[in-house]
Amino acid sequence: MTTASATSWLDLPADHPFGVATLPYGVFSTASDPGPRVGVAIGEMILDLAAAVGQLAPPLAAAVAGPSLDTLLAAGPQAWSQVRALVTAWLTDATFSERLGQHLVPARDAVLHLPFTVADYVDFYASEQHATNLGKMFRPGQDPLTPNWKHLPIGYHGRAGTIVGSGTDIVRPCGQRRGTDGEITFGPSARLDIEAELGFVVGTGSRLGRPVDIDRFPEHVFGVCLVNDWSARDIQAWEYVPLGPFLGKSFATSISPWVVPLAALGAARVTPPARTVPLLPYLDDARTPPWGLDVRLEVRLNGHVVSRPMFDGMYWTGAQMLAHLTANGASLRTGDLYASGTISGARPDQRGSLIELSWGGAEPLRLPDGTTRTFLEDGDEVVISASAPGPDGTVIGFGEVRGRILPATEPPR
Amino acid sequence: MTTASATSWLDLPADHPFGVATLPYGVFSTASDPGPRVGVAIGEMILDLAAAVGQLAPPLAAAVAGPSLDTLLAAGPQAWSQVRALVTAWLTDATFSERLGQHLVPARDAVLHLPFTVADYVDFYASEQHATNLGKMFRPGQDPLTPNWKHLPIGYHGRAGTIVGSGTDIVRPCGQRRGTDGEITFGPSARLDIEAELGFVVGTGSRLGRPVDIDRFPEHVFGVCLVNDWSARDIQAWEYVPLGPFLGKSFATSISPWVVPLAALGAARVTPPARTVPLLPYLDDARTPPWGLDVRLEVRLNGHVVSRPMFDGMYWTGAQMLAHLTANGASLRTGDLYASGTISGARPDQRGSLIELSWGGAEPLRLPDGTTRTFLEDGDEVVISASAPGPDGTVIGFGEVRGRILPATEPPR
Repeated sequence: MTTASATSWLDLPADHPFGVATLPYGVFSTASDPGPRVGVAIGEMILDLAAAVGQLAPPLAAAVAGPSLDTLLAAGPQAWSQVRALVTAWLTDATFSERLGQHLVPARDAVLHLPFTVADYVDFYASEQHATNLGKMFRPGQDPLTPNWKHLPIGYHGRAGTIVGSGTDIVRPCGQRRGTDGEITFGPSARLDIEAELGFVVGTGSRLGRPVDIDRFPEHVFGVCLVNDWSARDIQAWEYVPLGPFLGKSFATSISPWVVPLAALGAARVTPPARTVPLLPYLDDARTPPWGLDVRLEVRLNGHVVSRPMFDGMYWTGAQMLAHLTANGASLRTGDLYASGTISGARPDQRGSLIELSWGGAEPLRLPDGTTRTFLEDGDEVVISASAPGPDGTVIGFGEVRGRILPATEPPR
Repeated sequence: MTTASATSWLDLPADHPFGVATLPYGVFSTASDPGPRVGVAIGEMILDLAAAVGQLAPPLAAAVAGPSLDTLLAAGPQAWSQVRALVTAWLTDATFSERLGQHLVPARDAVLHLPFTVADYVDFYASEQHATNLGKMFRPGQDPLTPNWKHLPIGYHGRAGTIVGSGTDIVRPCGQRRGTDGEITFGPSARLDIEAELGFVVGTGSRLGRPVDIDRFPEHVFGVCLVNDWSARDIQAWEYVPLGPFLGKSFATSISPWVVPLAALGAARVTPPARTVPLLPYLDDARTPPWGLDVRLEVRLNGHVVSRPMFDGMYWTGAQMLAHLTANGASLRTGDLYASGTISGARPDQRGSLIELSWGGAEPLRLPDGTTRTFLEDGDEVVISASAPGPDGTVIGFGEVRGRILPATEPPR
């Protein structure tokens, strides 16, 4: 197999985020061929994977067919390896350039789609800094971290049906909130926020009643995408006790069009922060290389960088989240998505949400264009991007997830 | 259209729970024809709906085709009315007896399946008695009802992928819990419980960003089923602050095989309990006949009735839950399921969960077989059934949802 750090005959800069060390999967269409199909990003191009495999590796055609990544996700880790090895070989061996050229589409000519059918969506709460910051704001006067926080990765189910592709406009949600005077009113959220997260995309399902061992993370999880878990803080604050966030989150969650396979993240694996509470065996990752990830995010608001969250500081890894999610025997399905929760670091400029960046609205952010923000205003656009170190000085890019706020629509009456 | 209170040429007792006033929809197969298909329960028989429609009403065949109710759910309220009117006419007009007879299968020869593909699953918390009882047990010393409880129907998302059909065995889940000594351990739940609920099955989806008006409940909700929301109280108690129930619930949720259409519940509509807090307009159902429902449940444990919960005491109606669920613009999809939360009445023998019936384990239940129960033991079988008044003294049956507890499997290491 060609090494991932080989160079492509496409003559990309060594540090191109979509070089041959990345090879993320997505779904695209073009004006001339409007049917959504699986693609692999390479440089400024998209490889039409089904077309290329159909010509060069017909036995694998079934694994990459269809209008989404669903088939590839379900095909399992052996197929994932085979497809990645093939694509790597094709893109690094110049003898393929002619045959492959006809299947390369300029990315600027393509429309990117929601890449897979989301089965169940779970959102975790894996950043100690984020949980601490929100605990201080939502439960003042109490210990900001709840007693369970370092014993298990806290998570909850979100709404899979309102996960949308990057670029989808976000209508400002309406809802109930309690004013500082105690009055309960219904109206557009006045504290609309973002949450910068990574999402783990499940490929291989599991059987009901059978927990998935923490070591089996790469057999079940296909890859990683970017997630913006839009949040209406005023709605959330009023509704969330005792059963957790609901309408404060369920109006929309945006994910990036490109899913970076776990296989691209080998050089990004790092040891997570020291655990200060002993872990139960099912969560203990001390005996295997842990799945901390050196992924560096960037949050832009109307073009201005407002935060640079670092995933390497997350207390819980994706492997631990998976082990916990299934510890009670809950089964996995192809297309399950679980997100990390907001990624926030120790420094103020590493906080992954506006409620933290503006400290609950008390410390407005001053943007370079002279405006200030506490929460999102209508028309604001948020772009979250990320990268990680690849092998031999290469860069693994995650692309971006983008969304713009539209004004609230009139309530039903 | 033949009236729903007409009698069938099948000569059923007037109070048969599956008389012509009920006509619930489900999915069945038989040994001689193992393909799952849509059926309607009538007496002790199941009408093979696709076969009957194919012969007698071909233009409607597309609406009832396929191995689940998904197609019928998506077909919308006009199709639901047409199909129900047709089936009612066929079963009440003896001239159809010969043509229909070949499409009737004895229910005892049929296997019943999970009736539809669950999209998103939401669980509400709509019984004031249940919320009060659990508040007293989970948050002693605090006001048992949280301040938001009478302002909005509290709900949270559950795991759609672990919703199982009636009769599926339930493996006792393992998980983290904190002992009375404060020790954190992992092991089989020692407080495995039931929750007797009704579930509302969404047929017609809605657009993202567009709340669904409370009056449009019957245009979106196809019907009602029974739900047993199995709950591991020890896991739940340790994990649920601050983001709500997760692994304490996600290991399995059982639903009944028969979905009773809303059209069968006209005579069961009642005014819900008086609201003691003014409702915001989007939840206000004072101007239309409200959707309180006189549905009477029965919970049997190893054959012994342990509770008779009454849905007519629920503070929030299914129509209010729908309006709330979408108030923030969250969209609906065909197959969304939202459940009421445990149905508990004022009397101790109307409590819909064992944690309430045994008051947190402090007051064991004595069963007629001489055994006692606080929570479920391995081998226990729970059956929840229900009925409601139909027109002209008829009875609307919901069938039952059944599940037996299997011992925990060994943890992964």
